Amino acid sequence: MFITLDGIDGVGKSTQIARLAEHLESLGQDVLTVRDPGSTDVGSKLRSLLLDSDLTMHRRTEAMLFMASRCEMVETIIRPALDAGRWVISDRFLLSTVVYQSVGGDVPPDLLWKLGEAANDWLCPDVTILLDMPAEASMRRLDRPADRMESRGLDYLETVRQAFLDQLPHSSPRNVVIDADRDIDAVTDDVLALFASQAST
Amino acid sequence: MFITLDGIDGVGKSTQIARLAEHLESLGQDVLTVRDPGSTDVGSKLRSLLLDSDLTMHRRTEAMLFMASRCEMVETIIRPALDAGRWVISDRFLLSTVVYQSVGGDVPPDLLWKLGEAANDWLCPDVTILLDMPAEASMRRLDRPADRMESRGLDYLETVRQAFLDQLPHSSPRNVVIDADRDIDAVTDDVLALFASQAST
Repeated sequence: MFITLDGIDGVGKSTQIARLAEHLESLGQDVLTVRDPGSTDVGSKLRSLLLDSDLTMHRRTEAMLFMASRCEMVETIIRPALDAGRWVISDRFLLSTVVYQSVGGDVPPDLLWKLGEAANDWLCPDVTILLDMPAEASMRRLDRPADRMESRGLDYLETVRQAFLDQLPHSSPRNVVIDADRDIDAVTDDVLALFASQAST
Repeated sequence: MFITLDGIDGVGKSTQIARLAEHLESLGQDVLTVRDPGSTDVGSKLRSLLLDSDLTMHRRTEAMLFMASRCEMVETIIRPALDAGRWVISDRFLLSTVVYQSVGGDVPPDLLWKLGEAANDWLCPDVTILLDMPAEASMRRLDRPADRMESRGLDYLETVRQAFLDQLPHSSPRNVVIDADRDIDAVTDDVLALFASQAST
């Protein structure tokens, strides 16, 4: 089973992924956790290209490079793991590219879905979990310096949060919003409950 | 009007493009000729990544990088020229990526068309001209050292030629095969005849 967790920074994705993986492993499942954009050889070259501030490019070109990087991770890491019967949990996936490249209006979300789905050869998550909380709450939780996203401020972040909610239905056959603005253990209970039956089969 | 010429190496694309451009200019048209993969800043970075023999990648990832490069050329060079009322003639376009990345069977042509069309935001040529000749004849015409393609031999090249003929119908609303295994002037006559009426309007 292929699960992705997504949402704006600061909602607790890493914590919940670690807990879900631990839980599934305690039930005897073989679990691989990955992070998108992934750390393939091509991915790290593309990453430095995307971070090169001297290099200007069209937003759709930028999206294509994120998608090329994901394509490589899908083919060399995710698909082989799924074929071997492992569970794969990914920290972010195509949903994030659609959200971040479409907010601001440069690239239509529909085009990004079409491109990204073909780039992944139509491998899509079985379940996408969106950890949702108000932008203001997520910013309070972040204890590291502001990155590109946060530096654009609260209004931008709230727009991104809304885009996640709007685009979520396209992500996978099963899409779940979990209120992450609560006690971490309560959030974990909701996440684990989603896999209570499947994990034991 | 956006015109692309395609076909295996050695069929005379550069010569015919130069003659077509000259002819259209003599009729008062403003013509821009480009070559795909194009020479944008991102394109040249991606080109060195694609030529890096230490870097292995999935064939679809490779295709995505060609498409990202083309996306950038479309947005920064081709579309602005078309919007300004210029004619654009491109030496190769998406058809070539579909052919070269699908021959060998690694990536299905349909997926490559879908990806490539979305990458170009559905800008497609008005006319695609396929200069066709037997692989053996094209190899005789080449007076430069064998490149990647030629080094794989005549059988491979004949497969590529056939893939161009098979995939051509998907390239644009109007697709024309011209027998290029003839006197160069006779081929030019056929190319120019395609634009006899449009150019004078």
